[in-house]
Amino acid sequence: MNDRKFFEEYRTGETRETTGRTITESDIVLHAGQTGDFYPHHMDVEWCKTQPFGQRLAHGTLIFSVAIGMTAGTINEESLTYGYDRLRFLRPVFIGDTIRVKVTITDKRPHRQPDKGMVVEGVEVVNQHGQPVMVCEHLLLVNRK
Amino acid sequence: MNDRKFFEEYRTGETRETTGRTITESDIVLHAGQTGDFYPHHMDVEWCKTQPFGQRLAHGTLIFSVAIGMTAGTINEESLTYGYDRLRFLRPVFIGDTIRVKVTITDKRPHRQPDKGMVVEGVEVVNQHGQPVMVCEHLLLVNRK
Amino acid sequence: MNDRKFFEEYRTGETRETTGRTITESDIVLHAGQTGDFYPHHMDVEWCKTQPFGQRLAHGTLIFSVAIGMTAGTINEESLTYGYDRLRFLRPVFIGDTIRVKVTITDKRPHRQPDKGMVVEGVEVVNQHGQPVMVCEHLLLVNRK
Amino acid sequence: MNDRKFFEEYRTGETRETTGRTITESDIVLHAGQTGDFYPHHMDVEWCKTQPFGQRLAHGTLIFSVAIGMTAGTINEESLTYGYDRLRFLRPVFIGDTIRVKVTITDKRPHRQPDKGMVVEGVEVVNQHGQPVMVCEHLLLVNRK
Amino acid sequence: MNDRKFFEEYRTGETRETTGRTITESDIVLHAGQTGDFYPHHMDVEWCKTQPFGQRLAHGTLIFSVAIGMTAGTINEESLTYGYDRLRFLRPVFIGDTIRVKVTITDKRPHRQPDKGMVVEGVEVVNQHGQPVMVCEHLLLVNRK
Amino acid sequence: MNDRKFFEEYRTGETRETTGRTITESDIVLHAGQTGDFYPHHMDVEWCKTQPFGQRLAHGTLIFSVAIGMTAGTINEESLTYGYDRLRFLRPVFIGDTIRVKVTITDKRPHRQPDKGMVVEGVEVVNQHGQPVMVCEHLLLVNRK
Repeated sequence: MNDRKFFEEYRTGETRETTGRTITESDIVLHAGQTGDFYPHHMDVEWCKTQPFGQRLAHGTLIFSVAIGMTAGTINEESLTYGYDRLRFLRPVFIGDTIRVKVTITDKRPHRQPDKGMVVEGVEVVNQHGQPVMVCEHLLLVNRK
Repeated sequence: MNDRKFFEEYRTGETRETTGRTITESDIVLHAGQTGDFYPHHMDVEWCKTQPFGQRLAHGTLIFSVAIGMTAGTINEESLTYGYDRLRFLRPVFIGDTIRVKVTITDKRPHRQPDKGMVVEGVEVVNQHGQPVMVCEHLLLVNRK
Repeated sequence: MNDRKFFEEYRTGETRETTGRTITESDIVLHAGQTGDFYPHHMDVEWCKTQPFGQRLAHGTLIFSVAIGMTAGTINEESLTYGYDRLRFLRPVFIGDTIRVKVTITDKRPHRQPDKGMVVEGVEVVNQHGQPVMVCEHLLLVNRK
Repeated sequence: MNDRKFFEEYRTGETRETTGRTITESDIVLHAGQTGDFYPHHMDVEWCKTQPFGQRLAHGTLIFSVAIGMTAGTINEESLTYGYDRLRFLRPVFIGDTIRVKVTITDKRPHRQPDKGMVVEGVEVVNQHGQPVMVCEHLLLVNRK
Repeated sequence: MNDRKFFEEYRTGETRETTGRTITESDIVLHAGQTGDFYPHHMDVEWCKTQPFGQRLAHGTLIFSVAIGMTAGTINEESLTYGYDRLRFLRPVFIGDTIRVKVTITDKRPHRQPDKGMVVEGVEVVNQHGQPVMVCEHLLLVNRK
Repeated sequence: MNDRKFFEEYRTGETRETTGRTITESDIVLHAGQTGDFYPHHMDVEWCKTQPFGQRLAHGTLIFSVAIGMTAGTINEESLTYGYDRLRFLRPVFIGDTIRVKVTITDKRPHRQPDKGMVVEGVEVVNQHGQPVMVCEHLLLVNRK
């Protein structure tokens, strides 16, 4: 679905939340295959048993990619991803954990291009226990009307 | 391969560089499938023809995930990813472009945990023309000896 | 995104249309891998050259699955797929073709369960030339208010 | 393997049956990735726990695609898929269920092209308890001798 | 399809041949992802241009796996793979090449288990120019009647 | 990472060992999809229950491909795979088993090309119980200085 939303229409404090998605062993195997990261933290059950976390962990880049993808429901043709700041992995995500993403508009600021403004989305990924597992700031360059 | 490298052993200015990897249509299709991001920018040849860039673009999260994976050759058991800062997509990556990753230690700083320090890796992804397409700062929490 | 829409709220003649999606070689390879259908029509360039269509064809089940998936943007919790009728493949879909899906409510009828009704969605898949490549009727069992 | 079978050689009542295939979590993850259908019915363990069926369900289009693929052992060069009728999903297929497909020639009829005839295959998919989970009619356009 | 064939029924000199399969870029990307072999020979278009072969090559293990899979049409419940001998890669397989597999029974010999015998299948993979690209000997342990 | 190692530098008896990798259901599903080998030994839980091994087995070609991939950490530009000898599958690999690969230089011999020599790597794959599951000899054609 397409939608048009200009800089002026974003409201600080606005929030939206996605449905949930369970991170599966398949997701981890496919992500290793896409990235070439076959570290034993993700791929070796026996080694993981010897570690404090005791089991395989999802890749950070998997959680980031899936979380950003989960927020990508509606296309805003007036907006463009400028980048991401302060991406942090707060807790491990294990196989079988279910994540949801909460997005909050945390800031709006002018941009050196006068026909655009910067919108900051605070992205918070939580697991099925409501614990935050990842956060970042998504910077959007949005057209002014 | 495993390797141990303590905080004291990192040198600001140290660099390493990966081999190259061509971003293929398959990578984009698989990444859409992993993330659920089927935006026409990545998936619709006809729509892309009507846009300034004229052709399909790789997802930002694909380039980030592949680039980070490309740097993951040697496991340093003394180090842990803390997060990423200032992730920016500087140029589009098209199907058939070949990327390489250059990593430079740009900073070392103390951490509130006295047995650890923070190492900052500057990550730069360049295409086959030597143009930067993505940059970020990779923050590593590294054990002191 | 979730949405609630009861039987009474569907209007015959209502239409919606998806964005486009290009059918790639990767899609065909992945579909062969999922279904086990490695017929030369889909997998053997040389054999296809000897046939009237001259090139590889997408599997019918691929076009059907992708097309139905493309219409799956909004979840209506009051509705359930009952089945599909009159699924027909009207033209081949080749690698590089871009499909879109048009959905039209073509019929509403009572159901033997008095708290439900049957809604019929006419599904039409067209290629980048506007030619229909697949049609079917999607039967939905929808709760009454 | 190739085989030639003309319209005259099909016998109403003929049956064949495939070997079994277990529907795995991987199949569902790959099918979501192929189709873009990430509905919580297939992807969200926590949400599924709140529903009558209590666990993740295979996509209908997955069961259809796999079942049709399972029947695709031998290529009959004299035959072409015309379409499918009365596709119905009778029971959910859960992760770990094993399906088999039974095919019965249920009808033969003339076609407006005098050198061809229509053959109807009744396709029945059963689970490991012998319960039907999906049925459809596969319409084949078959050359006459 | 299942079939039973005992040691006594194999005839030296018997041959069978598969249909063809085109090796695609997707196959290589998926194989890299399955095996973790992202060597530039398979993944880096720019590096390959500097090499004598000038373009990306399929992994040897990909050609072997696909070729063996192509011969796996009929299940012989009386037979078991014992191993493979003299596996050789004779020519590179490039993206877009189409392979076929010819299998010839080249030897039958007694086995130390008196109720079994060893059957040797000569496996030859040829490309679309009829050139051999891979050969091996497939050793089967087959029950005697 | 790249490395140069000439024929003269290989020492008979040298060994190296990889980290571990757990063979998952996803690996088997993906390998069936890549090769087209959907034999019930790998894909049908119910049928496997009726067999002596009682559960699904990894494909031999999967174990071979993954094991060879696991040894592919460093690129030696002076070396080329000539082929494989005496590939044997000694024990089944089940879903959830974790394999490691031990490589030993077992032989060095002259080659008819005077500027090259043949190096033989003994490849042994062991499971989490330390039991060998696969062995083969990897033949490398290596440049002399």
